[in-house]
Amino acid sequence: MANLQMSPREEMVARFLDAAARGDVAKLSAMISQSSSLVDESGQNGWTALMLGARNGHFEVVNTLLSKGCDKSLVNKSGQTAYDIAKFWGHKHIASLLANSRDGNSHWLLPSSGLAGHENYFSREFLNRMSEKRSDSVWLEAKQSSPDTVYILFFNLNPLVTSGPDETSESKPDIKLCRLSHGCIKELLANPGTTLVFLGVEKTVKSTPSPPKDEDGLTAWFALNTDDNPIEHLKLPNPNSFFLKPPMPGLLKLSADEAGVVAQARAILAWHNRYSFCPTCGSRTKVDEGGHKRTCLKEDCRSLQGIHNTCYPRVDPVVIMLVIHPDGNQCLLGRKKTFPAGMFSCLAGFIEPGEVIEDAVRREVEEESGVKVGPVQYVSSQPWPMPSSLMIGCLAVAVSTDIKVDENEIEEAHWFTRQQVIDVLMKSGQPAFSMPPRQAIAHQLIKHWVGMSPNL
Amino acid sequence: MANLQMSPREEMVARFLDAAARGDVAKLSAMISQSSSLVDESGQNGWTALMLGARNGHFEVVNTLLSKGCDKSLVNKSGQTAYDIAKFWGHKHIASLLANSRDGNSHWLLPSSGLAGHENYFSREFLNRMSEKRSDSVWLEAKQSSPDTVYILFFNLNPLVTSGPDETSESKPDIKLCRLSHGCIKELLANPGTTLVFLGVEKTVKSTPSPPKDEDGLTAWFALNTDDNPIEHLKLPNPNSFFLKPPMPGLLKLSADEAGVVAQARAILAWHNRYSFCPTCGSRTKVDEGGHKRTCLKEDCRSLQGIHNTCYPRVDPVVIMLVIHPDGNQCLLGRKKTFPAGMFSCLAGFIEPGEVIEDAVRREVEEESGVKVGPVQYVSSQPWPMPSSLMIGCLAVAVSTDIKVDENEIEEAHWFTRQQVIDVLMKSGQPAFSMPPRQAIAHQLIKHWVGMSPNL
Repeated sequence: MANLQMSPREEMVARFLDAAARGDVAKLSAMISQSSSLVDESGQNGWTALMLGARNGHFEVVNTLLSKGCDKSLVNKSGQTAYDIAKFWGHKHIASLLANSRDGNSHWLLPSSGLAGHENYFSREFLNRMSEKRSDSVWLEAKQSSPDTVYILFFNLNPLVTSGPDETSESKPDIKLCRLSHGCIKELLANPGTTLVFLGVEKTVKSTPSPPKDEDGLTAWFALNTDDNPIEHLKLPNPNSFFLKPPMPGLLKLSADEAGVVAQARAILAWHNRYSFCPTCGSRTKVDEGGHKRTCLKEDCRSLQGIHNTCYPRVDPVVIMLVIHPDGNQCLLGRKKTFPAGMFSCLAGFIEPGEVIEDAVRREVEEESGVKVGPVQYVSSQPWPMPSSLMIGCLAVAVSTDIKVDENEIEEAHWFTRQQVIDVLMKSGQPAFSMPPRQAIAHQLIKHWVGMSPNL
Repeated sequence: MANLQMSPREEMVARFLDAAARGDVAKLSAMISQSSSLVDESGQNGWTALMLGARNGHFEVVNTLLSKGCDKSLVNKSGQTAYDIAKFWGHKHIASLLANSRDGNSHWLLPSSGLAGHENYFSREFLNRMSEKRSDSVWLEAKQSSPDTVYILFFNLNPLVTSGPDETSESKPDIKLCRLSHGCIKELLANPGTTLVFLGVEKTVKSTPSPPKDEDGLTAWFALNTDDNPIEHLKLPNPNSFFLKPPMPGLLKLSADEAGVVAQARAILAWHNRYSFCPTCGSRTKVDEGGHKRTCLKEDCRSLQGIHNTCYPRVDPVVIMLVIHPDGNQCLLGRKKTFPAGMFSCLAGFIEPGEVIEDAVRREVEEESGVKVGPVQYVSSQPWPMPSSLMIGCLAVAVSTDIKVDENEIEEAHWFTRQQVIDVLMKSGQPAFSMPPRQAIAHQLIKHWVGMSPNL
């Protein structure tokens, strides 16, 4: 038999492929943990474990192999990928999984839509919010004093940061959050003027050489805000740290992970900062649920009967839209008086009560510029923690073209040609104006319209 | 010459078509106001004014004719519509206008996206909000006492309505808002416990036989809420009127126009009802800007420095999503304990601070059902004035299938096949469960997924 002539490695690969073909996920996982390079091995005719799992309709096999980082682009001797095989054999379920692992840009079940899969600044979910733990005070208290826990600190809503050494690589963030330990902030935590918010736990469990100190091995993050200068209460590990004041534009220089954390932290802390009294009766309130709720201290307050939004943080939905000229080759940009000289951006405004996204776009564009809008298409959204907006980014097609600005809202608005916009984005020639930076969703909407990659 | 043999009507049509071909909008408008039936008249080879305007690139001619209600589906003797003609002659601008007048279902500048153009219940903008008038106290006061002004009244946030005569036609609304005059509510308006909100003016200017009493001819709408039973202060024109308590499900039986008005009115009145104290300092506040702002009465309150969301109504963004099984043929529906027996619906939850729409969908689905979601697509949105949500409706594709419900959130969740869902929608056979009514966006998302028309 051929098996008798196999090397130990060859035999292992054969058993591995056999487990994949049979749907034996337990065996597959055990073997990968012994030898992770197995995931991309192939046998007869170049068939990998992923292809065999896909051929035989074993969803969990495919899922496991993808999660272990196998290469889904490999082809067999017939030139088929695992995706092609799943599709051919009618396992749509698995074809879908294969199509969507790694990126969300395409899916056979949904029509493709614009920027789907593109991540805006402030949008990354670095932490798992674990909202079920917010009411678990025992767990929260244990995490608060854990040496593994990370604290980030704000003074008057300005985060404590360090400015990294002037690194030449553009991808390195300029500004980093100071990640403080319980020991650093212990004294501050006891201060009654300090607000504490549980942010979540790191999604990536660290593989430390020593076993984790907490039972669950999860690294929790908390945010603190104080209105009094906290420097004297702190034991700072880094003498170069400082409070980022004003927060903008420095907050746009964080890594994607830290920007996502700040988006949550600053919005909730700003809510505590402005909503410390009960809006229903004017009484004082106390902080509950790990900083995600405020409860009125007056016993017979109506806000204590049933569930009311007065007790929860606000998120203010805003529409921000790139309006396209009916000729398809120009877009409408405006400028507020407060913008830096020469800067133009998308129009934007708060959604009002009783209004849908599309009608808010139409109302705001007409109010600010006099231009009438027909079709509207959602593109992507972005949290903007100044203090707590959700920017809902849309493309909109104008059905009229005369501009008449409302001078209370904006100073100027113009139609710009596609070429003018590309010149500004590419910084070619002498651009006629400037645009918000790539971290702003306005910038990404404009890039999307001209068909440029988000990361250029 | 042929002209000599024309009837006066034929001659008028010829002049009308000539004005359209030349782009003479002023003449066109004047002639339509004399004889509105001109808009669909045709001349040589069946060409209408719309086609001539489209042929010659006269955007304003086409816009004017559409606004006067011309039939854009008419064809000339070559079988071409005005749209075909505009497209053929390269007037994209005009083709776009023609494609989008009346419905927003398609647009050459935007990829088609799901329910675009479909109007959810509570979404219609019957009124023009005219936010610029909110700070014009002279105008507002004049409108308040105008005999043309319409008041709608709420008592503890329940609207005053009449139940229409039991009409057999299904399209007639069961419940109508009582539209009160200034005379009816004058006494109530003077009551200090009454809140007044300016809603806007009717978009359609009435063509009354007598000239309008107000200079601008606009019919303003206001909403009132009171916490004391107002019956004794009212002069009700209709003895069959009553306060709709509880508001649901009665509020779902309004006409589309009135549902849209209630969506705005109830959300803002509910905000006044719960936010009468300043959340920043606990002081009393006063109503400003026609009921769209509350200002703290404490002189040195921080909320008076700069612009703060504490002074403006809340809109709470909610994600509501139909999760599709990776096989493409099942969808995930769940039920809360509070649902009527047998009812299942889409999962939903509030967007948290620092979260984008797509990640809120993923988090909520995983929290409530244990199912992991990959791609997410926005479909449409809906105001839900209980008290002030903006429902953001999405389709989402699952990448795992095992269900594990969080019993604090929902009672049950299951995968239902497309056929099961269609049976429920068509009320065919013995449906296995029930669904929310067509007025709910959940219902529309499900219909959208199975490919059924929204209005069936």
